[in-house]
Amino acid sequence: MKISCKKWVRDGLYLGTILLLSALPILAEANGSGEEAAGGEGHNFALIFLWIAIVLLIAKMAGLVEKLGQPAVLGELIVGIVLGNLALFGVNFFEPLKTNVIFTFLAELGVVILLFQIGLESNIREMSRVGLRAGIVAVIGVVVPFVLGTYVVGPMLLPGLASTTYLFLGAALTATSVGITARVFKDLGKLKTSAAQIVLGAAVIDDVLGLVILAVISAIATVGAVGAGLITWILAKAILFLVGSILLGRFLAPFLGKMFSKIHTGHGMKFTMALAFALVFAYVAKLIGLAPIVGAFAAGLVLDAVHFKFFKNPKFCEDIKKAAGGETKISKEMREAIEHHADRHVEELIEPVSYLFVPLFFVWVGMGVDLTTLGDTRVLLLALAITAVAFIGKIVTGFAVEKKDRWIVGFGMVPRGEVGLIFASVGASLGVISEEIFSIVVIMVIITTLCTPPILSALLKRQAA
Amino acid sequence: MKISCKKWVRDGLYLGTILLLSALPILAEANGSGEEAAGGEGHNFALIFLWIAIVLLIAKMAGLVEKLGQPAVLGELIVGIVLGNLALFGVNFFEPLKTNVIFTFLAELGVVILLFQIGLESNIREMSRVGLRAGIVAVIGVVVPFVLGTYVVGPMLLPGLASTTYLFLGAALTATSVGITARVFKDLGKLKTSAAQIVLGAAVIDDVLGLVILAVISAIATVGAVGAGLITWILAKAILFLVGSILLGRFLAPFLGKMFSKIHTGHGMKFTMALAFALVFAYVAKLIGLAPIVGAFAAGLVLDAVHFKFFKNPKFCEDIKKAAGGETKISKEMREAIEHHADRHVEELIEPVSYLFVPLFFVWVGMGVDLTTLGDTRVLLLALAITAVAFIGKIVTGFAVEKKDRWIVGFGMVPRGEVGLIFASVGASLGVISEEIFSIVVIMVIITTLCTPPILSALLKRQAA
Repeated sequence: MKISCKKWVRDGLYLGTILLLSALPILAEANGSGEEAAGGEGHNFALIFLWIAIVLLIAKMAGLVEKLGQPAVLGELIVGIVLGNLALFGVNFFEPLKTNVIFTFLAELGVVILLFQIGLESNIREMSRVGLRAGIVAVIGVVVPFVLGTYVVGPMLLPGLASTTYLFLGAALTATSVGITARVFKDLGKLKTSAAQIVLGAAVIDDVLGLVILAVISAIATVGAVGAGLITWILAKAILFLVGSILLGRFLAPFLGKMFSKIHTGHGMKFTMALAFALVFAYVAKLIGLAPIVGAFAAGLVLDAVHFKFFKNPKFCEDIKKAAGGETKISKEMREAIEHHADRHVEELIEPVSYLFVPLFFVWVGMGVDLTTLGDTRVLLLALAITAVAFIGKIVTGFAVEKKDRWIVGFGMVPRGEVGLIFASVGASLGVISEEIFSIVVIMVIITTLCTPPILSALLKRQAA
Repeated sequence: MKISCKKWVRDGLYLGTILLLSALPILAEANGSGEEAAGGEGHNFALIFLWIAIVLLIAKMAGLVEKLGQPAVLGELIVGIVLGNLALFGVNFFEPLKTNVIFTFLAELGVVILLFQIGLESNIREMSRVGLRAGIVAVIGVVVPFVLGTYVVGPMLLPGLASTTYLFLGAALTATSVGITARVFKDLGKLKTSAAQIVLGAAVIDDVLGLVILAVISAIATVGAVGAGLITWILAKAILFLVGSILLGRFLAPFLGKMFSKIHTGHGMKFTMALAFALVFAYVAKLIGLAPIVGAFAAGLVLDAVHFKFFKNPKFCEDIKKAAGGETKISKEMREAIEHHADRHVEELIEPVSYLFVPLFFVWVGMGVDLTTLGDTRVLLLALAITAVAFIGKIVTGFAVEKKDRWIVGFGMVPRGEVGLIFASVGASLGVISEEIFSIVVIMVIITTLCTPPILSALLKRQAA
């Protein structure tokens, strides 16, 4: 990769200009109105428009990391960390975004749309081909960190705490946050590889296992014991959802597609059907206790180009064919190329929506990183040890797959993200996770999240070379 | 228009099936969880996903009104009215949407994106060509209803009230809500006509005049008088914004386009730049007291295809050219057709986002219609009289334009929408507008909003015939 010095200076100048432009409203606003918008009665919608515009522009500028060979998601995370910690330097303009319910909703919608896109791009046949291996990866990736955290490293590093505390610490180490890894695969165009399919499949199974663990340890922490009936019930409804939604969806999608195409065959209807599928599946997943992104991913898997065969947009074909001198003058290859590009595929229609929401999610995740937690040396050292366990517990899963995919799958399972934090918060709300342990979990989440994109991208490039 | 009976039965069956499908989650949810999501601490994001999916699907189904020759927006408004009044029949599932801050935000974003799209499709040269006529239309359309409401119909129908009450009633009759009319022009593909350009231009000027009126009458109601300095200042900053944003935007857009294209030339960057423009303009408009949609419209006017000339996506051209047997074998006409379709224009990139948000806005507007206000006969009769004034006050503006556009411009200015309601709410908060008069204004807004789409669509079709 050759980068000329002159180009860097120019890029730097551009970057400076934009940062200055972005800073204007911040200066104009001072600190007051941002906080005003977040709190209490009236939400200042216009201010949220401004926030979105600035966040999207800066996140796009951070696409410069791609020139360093890094995936774009890393840039977005870093932008989030910078914006989220500007308050340390007295700039409070972005502070309300962390808790603003509208911005948080948009971020959440972003990750739902991302997983839906990834589901659309994934192949259900390829997925079930790797199903067994994904299952083994998921089980190892849950059992190893849980056992290490609960029975080895927890009692060793933090002696004298209640056994339920260790249970929650171990549980917080289990759940892979698939958003980061999926974005890296997507950024680098590797979603169709077997490694990507294994990681995606494992992450879904992982979420189901995490659901069971959370229910079990919560029951232990509150009533002191747990019945086999509860575990069976949680597992049963999760499996029922995944299998049921895919079977029912594959049956319903062509039927609904035909039905809605009677009303309209335009892009609007196609888009609406696809998005509604994603949102309804996300809702049902949440309803039974799974993450909404698992539902959105299932919706993407279910939907297939064939369900949209009733939607046609022939204007484009006509234009090109007329210019070519009419139907008869066109070769077979030509006709196929035109037909292929004739209609905007559902992926293409969803893409602009993802341009809007997906960066908001990763910036929002980055904003959650509180750099001051890195200040306490004791906590930091403990956190580094726990983080090492978090890495090891997932990297070992790589040994369940083919040698060529070993490290990619292992590191692909590493990021923890919001799921680990949810476990820790539930523990905190039950009074078994102290503030110190919560900080440790936060640092573990930060490090696993930030280290994965560069490592994974290096591994994928080495494999391709 | 011929519609066979069989087709209608089939459409009806499909409609029934979908309604049944949509009703499932409603039944499953019972009434509780909807209210839970709206109120207090925790927002249930997954439930909002479900709401969005259902609203979008039902709104799209209402596209059936197009088979009756009506614009799609009428269907969306009717869906909103139905969903918003289901509580009368004991179904409270959609009730929280009326006040849910996230849904309201998404609706507001929808109308901002709609006006941005309309700005993109409008031609600034055509717009300034009709500028003078638009100005006259705007002034007549503000002065006539204001004078009629404040000095004639108000004191006549509602005698014995404070003069400031009449002032607010008159003011509530002035401001045209451009969203409805613009959607009708868009639905029928008439945005480029001179009538559409006049109405759009007049609506922008109208908003500026409305801003001045609101400031003046608020000052009269609170301090009893108003200085010429205040009026001048409000007018000056509004004009400064409109002229300044368009001039500055036209200067900045190519510069920013070039700069951002250094980082990335993909669709994502193009989309982000365009959307950020719209959102920043919407924010600045709000900041100086104008409606955010005026800013978004100005942003659309400013942006032009030429600002995106640095963004190229040649993959598509290659595909088609290769299939045709290489560059040399392609005729000039053919090459032009390919180049024209080669890149996704910014309008195309914004479109899917509008599929998501725009229907939410019109459904939300419809949901605001409280059918019980139509129950009180005295209020209803008074409201009908005031509504007649609202119609007459705008229809007369048609006499300022060419004969062929007369009725289209006149009726195009009729819908009042949220601006009239804002005036009435400000009056209510100052204690000069009673609940009864507020209901009257609400009914006037309902009728002007609902009658315009069918009337305008009939007029446009008659003109085309």
